[in-house]
Amino acid sequence: MKSDLLSKIYNPADLRLLKEEQLAQVAQELRQFIIDIVSVKEGHLGASLGVVELTIALHYVFNTPDDLLVWDVGHQAYGHKILTERREIFHTNRQIGGVSGFPKRSESVYDTFGVGHSSTSISAALGMAIASKLKGNFDKEHIAVIGDASIASGMAFEGLNHAGVTDANILVILNDNAIGIDPSVGALKKYLTSVKNGKNPRQNNIIKSLNFDYSGPIDGHDLPKLIKELKRLKKIKGPKFLHIVTTKGKGLQQAEENQVKYHAPGKFDASTGEIHLKSEENLPPKYQDVFGLTILDLAKKNEKIIGITPAMPSGSSLKFMMDEFPERAFDVGIAEQHAVTLAAGMATQGMIVYCNIYSTFLQRAYDQVIHDVALQNLPVIFCLDRAGLVGEDGATHHGVFDIAYLRSIPNMIIYAPLNEIELQNILYTVQLGIDHPIAIRYPRGRGVLPNWEVENFGHYEKINWNKAKCLKDGTKVAVLSAGTIGNNVIEALKESTNSNEIAHYNFSFIKPLDINTLKIIFSTFDRIITIEEGVKNGGFGSAILEFAASNNFKNSIEILGVPDEFIEHGTVNQLQQLCKIDVKSLINLFSNGSK
Amino acid sequence: MKSDLLSKIYNPADLRLLKEEQLAQVAQELRQFIIDIVSVKEGHLGASLGVVELTIALHYVFNTPDDLLVWDVGHQAYGHKILTERREIFHTNRQIGGVSGFPKRSESVYDTFGVGHSSTSISAALGMAIASKLKGNFDKEHIAVIGDASIASGMAFEGLNHAGVTDANILVILNDNAIGIDPSVGALKKYLTSVKNGKNPRQNNIIKSLNFDYSGPIDGHDLPKLIKELKRLKKIKGPKFLHIVTTKGKGLQQAEENQVKYHAPGKFDASTGEIHLKSEENLPPKYQDVFGLTILDLAKKNEKIIGITPAMPSGSSLKFMMDEFPERAFDVGIAEQHAVTLAAGMATQGMIVYCNIYSTFLQRAYDQVIHDVALQNLPVIFCLDRAGLVGEDGATHHGVFDIAYLRSIPNMIIYAPLNEIELQNILYTVQLGIDHPIAIRYPRGRGVLPNWEVENFGHYEKINWNKAKCLKDGTKVAVLSAGTIGNNVIEALKESTNSNEIAHYNFSFIKPLDINTLKIIFSTFDRIITIEEGVKNGGFGSAILEFAASNNFKNSIEILGVPDEFIEHGTVNQLQQLCKIDVKSLINLFSNGSK
Repeated sequence: MKSDLLSKIYNPADLRLLKEEQLAQVAQELRQFIIDIVSVKEGHLGASLGVVELTIALHYVFNTPDDLLVWDVGHQAYGHKILTERREIFHTNRQIGGVSGFPKRSESVYDTFGVGHSSTSISAALGMAIASKLKGNFDKEHIAVIGDASIASGMAFEGLNHAGVTDANILVILNDNAIGIDPSVGALKKYLTSVKNGKNPRQNNIIKSLNFDYSGPIDGHDLPKLIKELKRLKKIKGPKFLHIVTTKGKGLQQAEENQVKYHAPGKFDASTGEIHLKSEENLPPKYQDVFGLTILDLAKKNEKIIGITPAMPSGSSLKFMMDEFPERAFDVGIAEQHAVTLAAGMATQGMIVYCNIYSTFLQRAYDQVIHDVALQNLPVIFCLDRAGLVGEDGATHHGVFDIAYLRSIPNMIIYAPLNEIELQNILYTVQLGIDHPIAIRYPRGRGVLPNWEVENFGHYEKINWNKAKCLKDGTKVAVLSAGTIGNNVIEALKESTNSNEIAHYNFSFIKPLDINTLKIIFSTFDRIITIEEGVKNGGFGSAILEFAASNNFKNSIEILGVPDEFIEHGTVNQLQQLCKIDVKSLINLFSNGSK
Repeated sequence: MKSDLLSKIYNPADLRLLKEEQLAQVAQELRQFIIDIVSVKEGHLGASLGVVELTIALHYVFNTPDDLLVWDVGHQAYGHKILTERREIFHTNRQIGGVSGFPKRSESVYDTFGVGHSSTSISAALGMAIASKLKGNFDKEHIAVIGDASIASGMAFEGLNHAGVTDANILVILNDNAIGIDPSVGALKKYLTSVKNGKNPRQNNIIKSLNFDYSGPIDGHDLPKLIKELKRLKKIKGPKFLHIVTTKGKGLQQAEENQVKYHAPGKFDASTGEIHLKSEENLPPKYQDVFGLTILDLAKKNEKIIGITPAMPSGSSLKFMMDEFPERAFDVGIAEQHAVTLAAGMATQGMIVYCNIYSTFLQRAYDQVIHDVALQNLPVIFCLDRAGLVGEDGATHHGVFDIAYLRSIPNMIIYAPLNEIELQNILYTVQLGIDHPIAIRYPRGRGVLPNWEVENFGHYEKINWNKAKCLKDGTKVAVLSAGTIGNNVIEALKESTNSNEIAHYNFSFIKPLDINTLKIIFSTFDRIITIEEGVKNGGFGSAILEFAASNNFKNSIEILGVPDEFIEHGTVNQLQQLCKIDVKSLINLFSNGSK
């Protein structure tokens, strides 16, 4: 019986003491370690399984952390974390206070650059490489590992375009597995496939045209070949590019065969790979499915409807429409900028475009929202999925800035549905015709109405445009909530001792505000509390302050929301607690009554 | 003597009545018309002169406005405007109420997509093309004309990557003149140069690799050749790419020879091309030169200082440093996303990075500011040039959103200098060491201190960190200004009848706010007026409201700034008038005294 090697590796220095022929065993153990932990603790699986050999080879050949290694996105960095001083705490992955699901500078010197969003690695590594040269370190290597989905994003091209004309020591490794979270798309993917299949004349090479020393494609699971090639590249100065081919989910049969599902499979059986199905009975639907089912239903009746997602067909549930109307539903790859301006172009021709982008990723297309959509007042419908706190994905992924960054844009309407019915109905209402672009923000995960699909789906009601709604009367205090966080208010009011004093208004329309209702509220209640699942600086609460100031109301106004700090990972409820917007915190606040 | 052809062309239908051999004369007349107007009325010159033949050929061959033509950026669209029903009003170009300097949907049916920022044309045209196909228009052509500087931006790559796998009728025309506003940079430019020089084997073609039907390069000033090729392409379905080579400034010798200067030369002699030099005596310096001279001076003494500009070395005056320290000052091309993350990568290695980006263009890198800089709390120094109203460039270019969109980001410091001295001193102070990223916003154009260079340049004083400053005492009202707009307040107070009642505080630190001074102000004055050259929604004034609400102050607060609408083109003073933040409006406001 072989001795256990992995448990003796605290960091890469230990790895480098091993003989090359022992590394295959390390790979096997590392793979099993990842499977064992993720099967119980959940997290991202397939990406890390696919780069086990690459991870070992990189840390074996290069002198990390002196040589600087940047993982693009970071879903694939579990093996890296385990080999770099975090094996024993890796079981805390993605838990509050535990290891982050992504590389993070504050966590380890081996995590040279914090990631989460895609396509940043080339720019970051190039910055490091140029800095090293200026500091007189000419031997240091700077490595960006990037997938074929991420390298197709515009930002990666910008990095390559610059790197190619420098003499910086940068090694870009393309981890080509033909899939991101969903299968890769686009002309570059098609090109890469032709390269892998040997159908492309080698001299016709995009990467070489960009002035890189290109090698590959080679099998990314062949450790000896990888190590040999990395050792060769280590001696070459300047910008280098290695194209490796891997299989996402490698080593776990189900994960290889069902790569989308096993990207982040939840709990599963570590030996069989079988996913432990949660009972879905009596659970409310995911907002994603409310979106996906509703847009499909609407698209059946309105042929002008178009759906766009940048690389999140499964995550957003736009795939329902893509399956049925492939000519009208588009996955454009990790290309938020393009997605938004494509939508704008379509809107000029009278199409009704639902552009579904995660709140955090719309940050990538902020200029396009302003310059291409809002300035031209094109009626594009932005569906901002995963708005608010997203939980375990943490600081890089929370969708907490959107209200603030969209509210300052002229022409933009911002709507945050309270629940599944409001989401369905706003999706219905906007396709009847709107005069402005609109952003509809809703959170990750499940709603509050277990019977929505049976009782409500398809029974559309036109949204009362630009109206706030009194959900509960009260005598002293008015709580103004925006979006699904209002359900916390509803829950809290059920259990608060002073709830008769507290009125609750639902402001699904964050912009424009319902001025008439606000005037009544401010004339009726001395104390106003606003609550949103978004940053307090510049958000919904600030809009209420602006209203009050410009109408000369002197009411006391308290703003609840995300404070001016980055919120880390944890369960959504834990994070809401940190922000004091969870049900318990609200019960405490409300039970103190009017101050 | 030849008859005048141009004056008979109201729109492209008239152009199409001409014989092909008459078009050379149209080109000559059109070129002269542009020169005659721009020489007197100012505006962008070189770009439009370079595409005179292309403009004529496109409108001659294609059936505009049914065929849809998108000009990238739009500097080059003067000829297009003149040929499309705007010849007689073209002399109002860039004036308030006049023709916009860029294509604009609300101005003409021939302007199919509003532009100003670069690299949007492919996405927009593709959106139109897909929409046409869905509507059953299979013959319509959709044309994006894009320069070699713009096509190197990531967003353009995203558009190409998508277009290449569609069967949409899109024709991308690369107008390759090797220059944007400054000379083009990067590996793609190098590649294109090799193609033009015939040094690149034709089969090695990036564009073909992306699945386009590629033709070229051809001479973009050869009308018969252009027309022949466009006619051929008109018959081909699907994604097509035509590479043409042109000379920026074509037809005016000085403009051809000095392409950077003649991008937008100001007034000049239409026959000789000589630029009318304005007397610069006794004028205050441009903020750009304060930046450029100061960073150069600081870089001489501190070798960790690095400068980055995305394609604006002349406009930002970073060229001063680029000339002297080419290894530490970088023009990365039109690549704001890359610029920001490159800066972040350098900052991880201890470099002091000044990343100079126009306020309006930082919108392109919003996610990188949040995700790569602020989240990691890297001390990158953003120099936001052209913050505030930019004047004649108009709605696409005003830098009015930055305070709002940056203020919601944790860790960000926002500083808006009052004048040249504060700009110089903050640039000095930050390189002594900062704990957070900072954005320093300053406007386009000249400051207020004619003797700055003689009296102040190089005499650095450390900025009193996070402190507001009382510039003038008063009895009843406190005006809180952020940035150079404070000079309007200073001027207005000199001429207001009630100025003894009005105190003036300069809040150069917009974030974090000087809470102690604010508490004194709010305890002293009943009425507070805030003023900023930025959007009121979520801006500096909102920050003051948030302070007041959380500290339970009930003072009356009036917010002055840019209202919730897009501001068009005009002189800065005209636009400030629209926003009621010009000196005269302030005199009126102040002279009404405390209400």
